Order: sequence, then structure tokens, then C-alpha cells
Amino acid sequence: MNTATDSRNIAAGAKRITGVLSPVVTPFKRDLSPDPERYARHCKWLLAHGCSGLAVFGTNSEANSLSADERMILLEHLVQSGVPPEKLMPGTGMCALTDSVRLTAHAVGLGCGGVLMLPPFYYKGVPDEGLYRNFSEVIERVGDARLRLYLYHIPPVAQVGISLGLIERLLKAYPGTVAGAKDSSGDWSNTKAMLDAFAKHGFDIFPGSEVFLLDGLRGGGKGCITATGNVNSGAIDAVYRNWQTAEADRLQAAITATRAIVQKYPMMAALKAIVAHWGKDAQWATVRPPLVELTPGQRGSLAAELVADGFDMPGLAG
Amino acid sequence: MNTATDSRNIAAGAKRITGVLSPVVTPFKRDLSPDPERYARHCKWLLAHGCSGLAVFGTNSEANSLSADERMILLEHLVQSGVPPEKLMPGTGMCALTDSVRLTAHAVGLGCGGVLMLPPFYYKGVPDEGLYRNFSEVIERVGDARLRLYLYHIPPVAQVGISLGLIERLLKAYPGTVAGAKDSSGDWSNTKAMLDAFAKHGFDIFPGSEVFLLDGLRGGGKGCITATGNVNSGAIDAVYRNWQTAEADRLQAAITATRAIVQKYPMMAALKAIVAHWGKDAQWATVRPPLVELTPGQRGSLAAELVADGFDMPGLAG
Repeated sequence: MNTATDSRNIAAGAKRITGVLSPVVTPFKRDLSPDPERYARHCKWLLAHGCSGLAVFGTNSEANSLSADERMILLEHLVQSGVPPEKLMPGTGMCALTDSVRLTAHAVGLGCGGVLMLPPFYYKGVPDEGLYRNFSEVIERVGDARLRLYLYHIPPVAQVGISLGLIERLLKAYPGTVAGAKDSSGDWSNTKAMLDAFAKHGFDIFPGSEVFLLDGLRGGGKGCITATGNVNSGAIDAVYRNWQTAEADRLQAAITATRAIVQKYPMMAALKAIVAHWGKDAQWATVRPPLVELTPGQRGSLAAELVADGFDMPGLAG
Repeated sequence: MNTATDSRNIAAGAKRITGVLSPVVTPFKRDLSPDPERYARHCKWLLAHGCSGLAVFGTNSEANSLSADERMILLEHLVQSGVPPEKLMPGTGMCALTDSVRLTAHAVGLGCGGVLMLPPFYYKGVPDEGLYRNFSEVIERVGDARLRLYLYHIPPVAQVGISLGLIERLLKAYPGTVAGAKDSSGDWSNTKAMLDAFAKHGFDIFPGSEVFLLDGLRGGGKGCITATGNVNSGAIDAVYRNWQTAEADRLQAAITATRAIVQKYPMMAALKAIVAHWGKDAQWATVRPPLVELTPGQRGSLAAELVADGFDMPGLAG
């Protein structure tokens, strides 16, 4: 972060989120409605066990299976139940410009530390000019100096990506507001190109997997936003806190190994199965269509592999 | 359509939509808000010029750039302004189950002849079991015998498709309600497989392009739902009305040629440019981000090519 940007942030009274962020899994009741109580409990557990921020309503939150109203109700509940809004970076990028504006304004109004914004993802092959107009319209319509917008690059899922040229143009037009990116390309060369081009210009880069956490920090990144942060936040945070020590590579190898176990299974169902197992709360395993929960066999082998790896979620079962 | 299904439809008082349907382009005002007046005018022009139904809120309607509320307001306006609801087949498939239920119940409540439903399209690589649960939940939650659900298969855009196995399972579980499909795969072999498997079982198949209209009708299809139906509806309807005559192949060749001209340009921007040009109403050219309107050069060459082809939109300029 350069001095000019530091001044802007101090002027706006905002300390930016850094460290380990989890795209918090969203619990559902039997009728598939979101469960605000379980949700707030898990958010608080994460903040007490290594997460410095919560990227609620991310891909792994099944956020794209929630309506805009459902997201807003959950977000208000979190803040009302004592989760500090400055630690929240909700996903607010929708297919419809008007929905993105509505969710973003709502998050800023609640005092959220940032928003993590997908590009509109239905129409494929759209030009950067159209994506620029989308983000620009959101920023202009929200019209609030408190807004910190993080661009969400996840081409394997969204199919529509965020190019370096688009970042450059947005950063130039909206310095301070365009605050960073999550790179879930899974392609280190892309993350490195992003870091090389923008890390020194007040643009905070978070790899979308802890596999790239140490490399990212060494390249000027600010942490990571990672699915497995839902379950392995303490160990991932240990890498973040110790990245400049002699222990760093060993700590990184450990979290990479745990990730490899979880990744053998469908990610969102696996995360929920882990929370259900270690939290002794079977209802947590429920996913919304079009996702499908793990089979009993998958649940068993996942838990067994994690136990063999020394994995734990201390205090989750209450 | 078999006799058993005919009986069910007669019992439910529903005559199914057949023929040429247009995914109606959605006009925007200067501030990018939807324009209900221009919208209703275009819908009425289409019904008077070859369209037997309107697949409003389709891909080419920029429906995925509209919020659920924006869609509902537009749909209510159409019905209030005299567009017969039994001719409407609105798109109601959203990423979030709760949005799909809400839009579908709203459309059925207004008396719409059907709904055209995308699968939830954010999460990729989801199993058919998850997609089955999605459609099943929508049908069960809407819980209305008037519902006629058409499945929307458009893998080039949605990336998530509708397999033959999924159709078979849904049709078996919800006969009469699961009424058909639009196949926008652009792959005739898939359309033919759909026709061969399901056309005789009360499942109405509409290719997603008029290029396949005649082949589709000869294979037991019921018409087509096509982007260029927004501008070339009369000529496409001529194929539909004359498909069993000696003129059919010549008429088909003509609409295929017109489609080829329009397809050289980004489709949605091109359709709106054509409506703006022949309707002498420049505001029609506006698209919402992430789309971008045609350049003046593109507009000029598109119009010139269409004029050379003998294209017209009679009465559009009012």
C-alpha cells in the first residue's frame, strides 16, 4: 500500500481487512431456509479461531443459491448479533446491475469493511468495456466514500473473469474505492502478474486458496480468502502470522496437505460435512439444490482422512 | 402429444403454446431502468406480426441483467396493457431456488401459458440429482396445476445443461406440468435425440434457433423460440404455417439467410439496433452492462446488409 493510499484510507477512517478470510458456509434448516442462529455462531467461531475477516456470501457460501433479500436478512442478523461489520466482506456481485447496487449499498450502510464483487456472470464473452461499465455504475450509484470494492476473479466458476487491463482502468478511475481482488483462478502465474502490477498501488490481493498463501505474501499479497478457511482457519492463520519466520514453509506444507484431503470431495458439501461432524450438528450438512450433500461413505472417509492428518476444530461442538 | 396428455390439458383448461416465440428484447430508458411502455408496444407488434407466443425474460431479453422485482413489474404491465397472458412464457429460472419459486408462482398467478426455466447456472459441474431437486422443489412449492414448465437447455451460455436423463425423470414425476423444452444447444443431434425420445410423450420441443425450425417440425417439434423472432417474426411464422407445403424449404432458406446476417454481430445489441433503426427510435439501442451497444459502423453495415436482403419490419415505426 503506498503512502497516498494510506492517507486516503486514514482520511476515510477505514483500516483495510488483511489476513485469512473465510467465505462462510451458509447453514440451512430442514425446509432449506437460511438459519441465522447457526450462521452467527459459526461466524463467531471463525473470528475466534484464526479468521481476521469473513467473506460472507462467497461461492462456497452457496451465496448464488440465495436471493438478495435472504442475503440482506442474514447480514443484518450477523451485525445485530455482534459480529463486527468492519471484519465483513460480503459478496454483492449479482447478474443484475440493480441487484448489485442494492446489495452493495446495503453492505456499506451496515459498515462492512468491504464487498467482494463478482462480475455479472450469465452472459459470456462480454467485452471489458461492458464489465467496466458494470462496476463503474455500481460505484457511482452507491456513491459512498466508505465503499471498498474487491474484484472477484473466479473464471473456473463464473466463466467471466477480471482481466489485468480491467483492474488497471478501474483502479485509475476509482483509487481508494477499488481496493483489491480475490484471485480464484487457481493459476499462480495470474496471481503473480496481479501482484507485480498492482500490489504497490493500494490494491490488496488475496489468492483464493491457502495453497498460494505463502507465495502470495512473499509477493506482496495481503492474506487469502479460502473455502477451507471455514474449517482449518487456525492453521492457515499460523502461516499468515509466521510467514517471515523459518517455520513458514513447514506450516505452509501442512495446510496444503489438509486442503488436498478436502479437495478430493465436492467442496461445499465437504465443508458442511466437516462442520456437522466436528460440531456434532447433523443439520449443518444440508445444502441447497443444485448441490447435493456427501454420501455417508464420503462423509466417513473424509472424516477418517482428516483425523489421520491430525485435523481438529477446537470448541466447535460447544 | 399423446391422448392422455391431451385429456390432462383439456381438464386443466390449458391450450399449449405452439409456433414462433420471441424472447422479447427489453427496452431501457436513459437511466437503464426498464421501459414498460416501449416493451408492451413491441410485444403487441410481435403478436400482430407472426409470433404466437412471447418467451419474455429469455437470454436475449437481457433477463439475467434484471432483478426479480423488475421482471415482475414488467410482466404485470404487459398483462394490464392487454397482452394475453396465455401467450406468455416468461423465463423464471434463477440461480436461487427461492427466486425461481417466487417468479414462477407470480407468472402462474397471472395466468401465463408457461414458464421457460433455466437451471441454476452459477455452480458448474453439478449432478443431475441436484438439478432434479431444484426443478422438483420449484414445482412442489408453486403447487399449482396450471403450471406448464418448459426446461431451458442453453449450454453455450448457462454452461449447466439439461440432460435427456433429467428430462425423462422430471417428465415421469410431473407429467402435464413438465411440458417441454427449448433446446438452444445449437446442436441438431441433441434436438433430434430430444424429439425422438420425448416428442410423443406430451413434451413440446422448440429449437432455440429458426435455423432448425423446419427440421424440428418434421421431427415432431412444436415451433421455435428464437432471438431473431424479435425482428423477423413474419418470415419465420411463414415457415411454421407452410412447413408441409412445397414452399417449405425455400422459405426456410430465406430465414436461415437472414439469421446469418444478424448473427455476424453481437446478438442482443444487434436486435436492439434493428428495432431502433426500423422503429425510428434510437433509445431502443440501449443495453445494460455487461453488454455494449453496436458501434455506429456496425449499425450501418448491419442495416445495409438487411436492406440488401429485402428485410423489413412493417408498421414498426407506427
